[in-house]
Amino acid sequence: MSKTDNQLSVFSLGGINEIGKNMYVVQYGDDIIVIDCGSKFPDETLLGIDLIVPDITYLLENSDKVRALIITHGHEDHIGGIPYIRRQLNMPIYATRLTLGLIEGKLREARLLADTKFIEIDSDSSIELGQITSTFFKTNHSIPDCLGVVFHTPEGTVVHTGDFKFDLTPVNNQYPDIHKMAEIGKNGILLLLSESTNAERPGYTPSESLVGKHIEDAFHKAKQKVFIATFASNVHRLQQVVDAAQATNRKLALLGRSMVNVVRIASELGYLTVPDGMLVEAGEVNRMVPDQIAILCTGSQGEPMAALSRLSRSNYRQVEIMRGDTVILSSSPIPGNERNVSRTVDNLFSLGAEVIYGSSSSTGMHVSGHGSQEELKLMLTLMKPKYFIPIHGEFRMLHQHRILAEGVGVDPANIYILNNGDVVDIKNEVATQSRKVYAGNTLVDGLGDVGNIVLRDRKQLAEDGILIVVLLLSKSDGKILSGPDIISRGFVYVRESEDLMDQANILATETINRLQKENVNQWNVLKTNVKEVLGRLFYEKTGRRPVILTILTEI
Amino acid sequence: MSKTDNQLSVFSLGGINEIGKNMYVVQYGDDIIVIDCGSKFPDETLLGIDLIVPDITYLLENSDKVRALIITHGHEDHIGGIPYIRRQLNMPIYATRLTLGLIEGKLREARLLADTKFIEIDSDSSIELGQITSTFFKTNHSIPDCLGVVFHTPEGTVVHTGDFKFDLTPVNNQYPDIHKMAEIGKNGILLLLSESTNAERPGYTPSESLVGKHIEDAFHKAKQKVFIATFASNVHRLQQVVDAAQATNRKLALLGRSMVNVVRIASELGYLTVPDGMLVEAGEVNRMVPDQIAILCTGSQGEPMAALSRLSRSNYRQVEIMRGDTVILSSSPIPGNERNVSRTVDNLFSLGAEVIYGSSSSTGMHVSGHGSQEELKLMLTLMKPKYFIPIHGEFRMLHQHRILAEGVGVDPANIYILNNGDVVDIKNEVATQSRKVYAGNTLVDGLGDVGNIVLRDRKQLAEDGILIVVLLLSKSDGKILSGPDIISRGFVYVRESEDLMDQANILATETINRLQKENVNQWNVLKTNVKEVLGRLFYEKTGRRPVILTILTEI
Repeated sequence: MSKTDNQLSVFSLGGINEIGKNMYVVQYGDDIIVIDCGSKFPDETLLGIDLIVPDITYLLENSDKVRALIITHGHEDHIGGIPYIRRQLNMPIYATRLTLGLIEGKLREARLLADTKFIEIDSDSSIELGQITSTFFKTNHSIPDCLGVVFHTPEGTVVHTGDFKFDLTPVNNQYPDIHKMAEIGKNGILLLLSESTNAERPGYTPSESLVGKHIEDAFHKAKQKVFIATFASNVHRLQQVVDAAQATNRKLALLGRSMVNVVRIASELGYLTVPDGMLVEAGEVNRMVPDQIAILCTGSQGEPMAALSRLSRSNYRQVEIMRGDTVILSSSPIPGNERNVSRTVDNLFSLGAEVIYGSSSSTGMHVSGHGSQEELKLMLTLMKPKYFIPIHGEFRMLHQHRILAEGVGVDPANIYILNNGDVVDIKNEVATQSRKVYAGNTLVDGLGDVGNIVLRDRKQLAEDGILIVVLLLSKSDGKILSGPDIISRGFVYVRESEDLMDQANILATETINRLQKENVNQWNVLKTNVKEVLGRLFYEKTGRRPVILTILTEI
Repeated sequence: MSKTDNQLSVFSLGGINEIGKNMYVVQYGDDIIVIDCGSKFPDETLLGIDLIVPDITYLLENSDKVRALIITHGHEDHIGGIPYIRRQLNMPIYATRLTLGLIEGKLREARLLADTKFIEIDSDSSIELGQITSTFFKTNHSIPDCLGVVFHTPEGTVVHTGDFKFDLTPVNNQYPDIHKMAEIGKNGILLLLSESTNAERPGYTPSESLVGKHIEDAFHKAKQKVFIATFASNVHRLQQVVDAAQATNRKLALLGRSMVNVVRIASELGYLTVPDGMLVEAGEVNRMVPDQIAILCTGSQGEPMAALSRLSRSNYRQVEIMRGDTVILSSSPIPGNERNVSRTVDNLFSLGAEVIYGSSSSTGMHVSGHGSQEELKLMLTLMKPKYFIPIHGEFRMLHQHRILAEGVGVDPANIYILNNGDVVDIKNEVATQSRKVYAGNTLVDGLGDVGNIVLRDRKQLAEDGILIVVLLLSKSDGKILSGPDIISRGFVYVRESEDLMDQANILATETINRLQKENVNQWNVLKTNVKEVLGRLFYEKTGRRPVILTILTEI
């Protein structure tokens, strides 16, 4: 990177044209501040991949300049990459108390806690690092303790909103700092990065506090046990469930590891108030009077191994859903999870449960944590940015956000729809966007990353399986000493395909014998020929094209 | 099956607890009528599977009793299984003109047309087959020429609704036969099978004719080319696109094989009216004045190989989407297709197109073909069934439909939520549900079916790949003559994992040598031991568990 002195550069290493793995970079001269370090879950095409995190090649190459990792809030798409990235680069982590609590939990599990430097901040903090001073403002969202970040640089002010909505009747007094935002934007700012999750959604996102009333009503109506599933990290929602349990004289059991963890951390840090004696162990649920117990559990996205999904399959050791129990899904499916959620609801109905699900306003069991179009316009209006980069969303969301920004008066020429790695440079208040830094996905499988070659192989294997042909050849005359032995995995069931296997055997033998007579004995040629004749045979007989692997041994 | 004489039996071989592969059976004594023969697409867990069709073991075992295959309408989930099933069982096919036209197209492609018997019917037909007489009534839906079926049996009347909505202002005069339905249900019927697709949706599904106005408005507003994607089979929608093109003086090009096919068949059979000279070839599009051309294409579900998706990637040979062109998705994503649709919309925005998408009433570019709760209640009210089986839907839809039926007065004890294969027997007007016939999925991959063992293997391969260990042993003393050679596919990239491969090599060698010293030479024991030590090594070093295949050859 050349001539970064005296210029401001802003880009993302993750979070643009995707939902997940957020990581943004603000650089002025030799000072780099990183914002967020998220992960995302792979879609079904990334076979066997556990997690995707940002590729931080750029940060590694400039590690001497990296001053801080600032985390806006404690959701997985903002903190989930920390354990993996921490192994590559040890950045001091700045975050609010709850966010730090959640990060520490992750690093403890990964045994990386010891050497990590944590700095607790709040919305009144001011951090001077090199030539960049960072200040903060409170936003509200579906987890407490969220921050927007203001970067004061010699070039001008940059604002990163974090995730936000404008909930004016929030739970637990998590009000947004509207006056502070107005103050920041009073004279306009240089550059705004604002999140775009709900840019397609007209209007205003309803307040979290509306959900509490609906939950309490459902608790009142329920004649037996009530199960309620939601994101563990939505501490506001957890508080409302606790309140509903209290109002209806129900004890509360927690199912699911992350639910137990978050309730513990949030209670210890003072973000969640649970009355003494309300919590009971999972093992006690079946012994209690059904209308005196509620169960708060994970699995609102239908994740197959989470509590709700296992309950719906009657596969949870200590707790059972009985005919007439009430089950509330206090969530809406994240795109890609629709089928898992539907399957869970189907199973719950089959158990005879009363199921309350779906995000229709008639059920009212969920509201989004992200602001809709009117709120995005409010943020743009408060900040009055000269330049605008919509972030945190897929392209169509970024484009809808662009249209909103144009509507409130941002110059269309000053709006940048970027890809991850596209750099906006600003010097003397003039922005240019002409260069890129490396940005990509790190595909985590198990303990390490997996490259594209391995993934391509997995796709081929998944599609039509593999067929292995083993042959022992004589070193002296090239004749077959043993084999061909043919082994199938994922192609055909050999016991039901003996004819086909016999034909393949004969064909492979004939091919080797023919080539041997022609004095062809280069292994590559032999292998290619066997592969070709068998490939043709299989496609003709089955319409499939397995991976064919010919293994030759010589003696 | 015992004692089926003098009793009525009804069950599904597909279509219950799923959307797709519909197949229902009505049997009285020795007479079997089959209704519909659909297919469905596999979800992402069914690796490499092309299509799922019903398992018709029951019909094959009772092939002498099968009198007819009646098709209610021409959608894939009702006709898509016909080519595959036809190879197993040749049933005479009864359907309306358009439906037959679509089926014939399929069978022609599969080269099965010659020996298939087709009987064209309409809503006035009456078919007497053994002791069952079938009559029909018109319904409307998102394809013309749909039927509901009435089975008059000695035991009483059974009605199968087919797919339906009550569209009182339909396109092309495809009115539902409400008076006929009222006549059928005047004195109540014995058993109703009614579709449940939209049983979760409150209210009334809007009329198809509303969409036409919105399409025409968008055509008027568009300053350049207009692309519109919809299901080819929705002939009503196609007609409205044709009408909008005519009203705005645009020529029309068709992209996508099924679009071209359906327009041809529907025009020939009189279901679609296209003005002379309106259609132009795809190759002419780029040469035309942009505001004088519209393009009607496939790909409204974001299918990666369909026209719209290829256009969105600038990967369609003859036609290009330019900045400022308008693209309309006249559809809503079928569950499971959300991501593909989103990706397509993202790409279209990136091309600079104005994209009109989403099923919000504000765009109004799509309405469902299935009746909502009020329409399902209307059907139940018209038919006054003694017994009711909600069909054509996943469990939660069937349960919502059950609740609707209870609401309009059907006795809760007389409503059956079934699984595929669960039989409802009715004798002397008393229903019992205690037995099952075999029902299942046939997983079609290429030309044949694929069983669960093959599929399980594919899943293992897809998850962590395969590792093959090849060893040549001496027959005389069990010593290693050659190898171990270790080959990886989809596990690690060997060039980047030489250390690990070396360790595996040493470990396998040591294991074989150790066992050989202990005089252990059963192949199973050798293989198991190598698999175990390598499995442990790999899991420790990589966190993954590949399939490990040890291949021993002896000489």
